[in-house]
Amino acid sequence: MDELAERPCEACRADVPKLTPLQCEALLDQLPQWRLIEVNGVKQLTRIYLYSGFLDAMAQAEKVAEIAQQENHHPALLVEWGRLTVTWWTHKIKGLHENDFVMAARTERLFTP
Amino acid sequence: MDELAERPCEACRADVPKLTPLQCEALLDQLPQWRLIEVNGVKQLTRIYLYSGFLDAMAQAEKVAEIAQQENHHPALLVEWGRLTVTWWTHKIKGLHENDFVMAARTERLFTP
Repeated sequence: MDELAERPCEACRADVPKLTPLQCEALLDQLPQWRLIEVNGVKQLTRIYLYSGFLDAMAQAEKVAEIAQQENHHPALLVEWGRLTVTWWTHKIKGLHENDFVMAARTERLFTP
Repeated sequence: MDELAERPCEACRADVPKLTPLQCEALLDQLPQWRLIEVNGVKQLTRIYLYSGFLDAMAQAEKVAEIAQQENHHPALLVEWGRLTVTWWTHKIKGLHENDFVMAARTERLFTP
């Protein structure tokens, strides 16, 4: 996972191909607590983190927002009482790019210092 | 809407009845930009706010989190690039309580100073 987190998050163009299912599975091996979902035909990478309250979930969301802003690549962050759902995908290609796995690995690193 | 926002957000017990559809409609009249949805059989009150970036949406989510924490009544906050979705419902009664409309009115007030 650390190797994945160290990879660059590259600027992405709309004509870059999506990752193939095989490529996704290979990268997912490094992120065992993340899973692939499909929302309205768009593949996404998601994980739920659990907490004992609302503010902890919000505070962690803010940390993810910071690394997102640094790379100008933004997830969906769903904050609820006791949990934060982080979901990465690449809007421009309507699917998954290596960047999303890189950012998921960096998200993991935020939560396991 | 201001009158609604001024009402107290009461401690809620699991045996308090949910609002009836008629009661919901009457309260919704004061919140024209909010709508009722049903998720897994649970009625909820939701609104999407639009922004020109991610950090603005995140900053507003933090403001909603503050008023939620003050009343110990917590929404779902979905932060994405360019938008924040705020959704209120009462977990204990698996549906809508007047508190949810009060908190929606207070959320509106945060966004329209």
